[in-house]
Amino acid sequence: MRMLTLTKDVKEELLDKLIKRSPNNYSEFEERVNSIINEVKERKDDALFEFTQKFDRASINKDNVLVTKEEIEEAYEQVDKKLVEVIRKAKENISIYHAKQKQNSWFTSENGKLLGQKVTPLERVGVYVPGGKAVYPSSVLMNVLPAKVAGVEEIIMCTPPMENGKAYAQTLVAANEAGVDKIYKVGGAQAIAAMAFGTESVPKVDKIVGPGNIYVALAKKAVFGYVGIDSIAGPSEILVLADETANPRYVAADLLSQAEHDELASAILVTTDAELAQKVDEEIINFTKELSRKEIIEKSLDNYGYILVAESMDEAISTCNDIASEHLEIVTKNPFEVMTKIKNAGAIFLGEYSSEPLGDYFAGPNHVLPTNGTARFFSPLGVDDFIKKSSIISYSRESLEEVYKDIVYFAESEKLTAHANSIKVRFEK
Amino acid sequence: MRMLTLTKDVKEELLDKLIKRSPNNYSEFEERVNSIINEVKERKDDALFEFTQKFDRASINKDNVLVTKEEIEEAYEQVDKKLVEVIRKAKENISIYHAKQKQNSWFTSENGKLLGQKVTPLERVGVYVPGGKAVYPSSVLMNVLPAKVAGVEEIIMCTPPMENGKAYAQTLVAANEAGVDKIYKVGGAQAIAAMAFGTESVPKVDKIVGPGNIYVALAKKAVFGYVGIDSIAGPSEILVLADETANPRYVAADLLSQAEHDELASAILVTTDAELAQKVDEEIINFTKELSRKEIIEKSLDNYGYILVAESMDEAISTCNDIASEHLEIVTKNPFEVMTKIKNAGAIFLGEYSSEPLGDYFAGPNHVLPTNGTARFFSPLGVDDFIKKSSIISYSRESLEEVYKDIVYFAESEKLTAHANSIKVRFEK
Repeated sequence: MRMLTLTKDVKEELLDKLIKRSPNNYSEFEERVNSIINEVKERKDDALFEFTQKFDRASINKDNVLVTKEEIEEAYEQVDKKLVEVIRKAKENISIYHAKQKQNSWFTSENGKLLGQKVTPLERVGVYVPGGKAVYPSSVLMNVLPAKVAGVEEIIMCTPPMENGKAYAQTLVAANEAGVDKIYKVGGAQAIAAMAFGTESVPKVDKIVGPGNIYVALAKKAVFGYVGIDSIAGPSEILVLADETANPRYVAADLLSQAEHDELASAILVTTDAELAQKVDEEIINFTKELSRKEIIEKSLDNYGYILVAESMDEAISTCNDIASEHLEIVTKNPFEVMTKIKNAGAIFLGEYSSEPLGDYFAGPNHVLPTNGTARFFSPLGVDDFIKKSSIISYSRESLEEVYKDIVYFAESEKLTAHANSIKVRFEK
Repeated sequence: MRMLTLTKDVKEELLDKLIKRSPNNYSEFEERVNSIINEVKERKDDALFEFTQKFDRASINKDNVLVTKEEIEEAYEQVDKKLVEVIRKAKENISIYHAKQKQNSWFTSENGKLLGQKVTPLERVGVYVPGGKAVYPSSVLMNVLPAKVAGVEEIIMCTPPMENGKAYAQTLVAANEAGVDKIYKVGGAQAIAAMAFGTESVPKVDKIVGPGNIYVALAKKAVFGYVGIDSIAGPSEILVLADETANPRYVAADLLSQAEHDELASAILVTTDAELAQKVDEEIINFTKELSRKEIIEKSLDNYGYILVAESMDEAISTCNDIASEHLEIVTKNPFEVMTKIKNAGAIFLGEYSSEPLGDYFAGPNHVLPTNGTARFFSPLGVDDFIKKSSIISYSRESLEEVYKDIVYFAESEKLTAHANSIKVRFEK
């Protein structure tokens, strides 16, 4: 793997390279995506099923688009019982963690004035689940369960069918375990458009979440504003911040766990210890040989794999903040102390037994995390994504009377006389 | 004003009309906006100042783009002392309300496992403040103060200059009172691009908030993903839900308070009382004659003014939920009971003395609210918009050992063998 001394130039170049992977940089696909969206918006089901025929080579129509109870039962027969068991354990951990994120409505009151904030779950949410080479039941759980915990009334799912017109069995089982209400066998930008605007078969939702390819990502961005969307997902990232106390085998294995996702994935080690850097590099070579996704790993390490040796822990930490990685592992003497200095990271794993895949599958926190430096301003997917707030304002006559002249003055100074009038009229003689 | 019996058809037509006002429907401007953004991204300050010359007819350069202490002092001399006083009172109320929105970092721990969520303020935020006919100091407070309360390290502001190269005095005073760190005299899509990508003069920010014209709205949407943005603002809306107990003069005055904003603003009354409907209509005619923004009001009422008479309170409430208005006033016998049935609204005003402008200026809750039906999934601007979260995961060796076989199984079932390996390696003999 590329091993470099951490300098300002090296860092700038790395940051520049990482940001270029953003779905925002694929505007050449925008026109095609927009035309798919417009077709579905206008011709609804007809367009939706035509695109499904074209892109997924599956014959889907209004009579078979919705997954039936029988199809779900069939799916259970196809998957390993052990998987169902593990899904249920993971579900429990994920539900418990997310339940702690729940916010209450609140109000304050004094002397005729009541102010507050009302929390209401979204009514209908659409979860997108990709097909093809990326059938991940864990992802279904991570997208659906926070909505469930939030109290969303109806959760629908869209997932592309296989050529035989069936959905992937693992997806169906995970969706059923997570409590999805309805599953539609459509995918791609056409599915996003269907959920954003509604068709005869697919109902319009309030928010769309879930990962997908570049078409799906751009379609989500295009419909943002008509519906809510989760953050725009880029390629996976792992950043390990380690000192001389780290075990090089563990560090190497963890870097590889993200490098295997796809060729755009990034795996970066920032360390204060040149010896560790060397050993991690050796372990990576050893492990890679034996891993089934060797080819992807080699490409992604070649593209975005870095081992950076920093002069000091402060410099290393500051670089981690600049990278703002999706996953950050802190494997140092005092990981919690280091954590207090971390400003930007989707999920932070502390200590040598907190391996990143623990968070992907099992611990409870969400694995849908901000990528591509967006951890500077985006948060992990969570219950907050499935609620909205309304401000609550109630003043008595006396409370309004106390302040009405100030309001009238303020409104008039902004030349909004009808605003002023609406206050004045309540105190006219 | 248009007075109609509330039927399904009337409602559908109204909803369709309202949604057409969305900034999403102005894609004909997209190309121009994108070209401005690309110019600024590539040529930075040079492009930024050229556009400022072109669109604002002001000569701004790197030496005068930043508002000086002297300019702020000058601004204080130009505005009424009373305005400063009222701004300070409003600031206090807004700060107190938003302080209650603050979320804490939290963790849970048991037996070797620690899970949590770390809350971190954004580092640098950019607030956009329009110029021209819409200089609203109240809007400055509402955009800046939640960021202040959240603990954002640096708040910068962009606002278009007048032809003499100065910023609007009221904007400067409000910005200074709210605690803005730096103010740049640039506006439009070019200012949004400058804050999203950085130029020699204007630093790159993590998130951009604040209202603006269609160019600003589209520019914000275009840079979404590179930086965070607040919700995409559409025209103002007021919806009054009233029964026979409402005072028609108050209702009329409140409807007009939003109608005066601009020609796209909507003012809708839904009532169960036909007599009230009639009286409100008369009062609107009376008030409008005397109001200074008569022409705007007449156009917006003509476009989007509706008085709808519903058969029952349940039907009326359901229509309010479908409209999902920016502002909702509930003026009924039991407003709090009705409120429990409201799912979608930016801000809810209860009772006849809770006039909407009270919320615009003074009560404390934010006046930056979801418009255009987006209250179905967006929330009022608040402290949450200026923080981000990181998940925290820390497992001991023993805790990981308890679950490691399940994780390995799950990863292998998803064919992610490097994920499985990163767990296995920790327990290899």
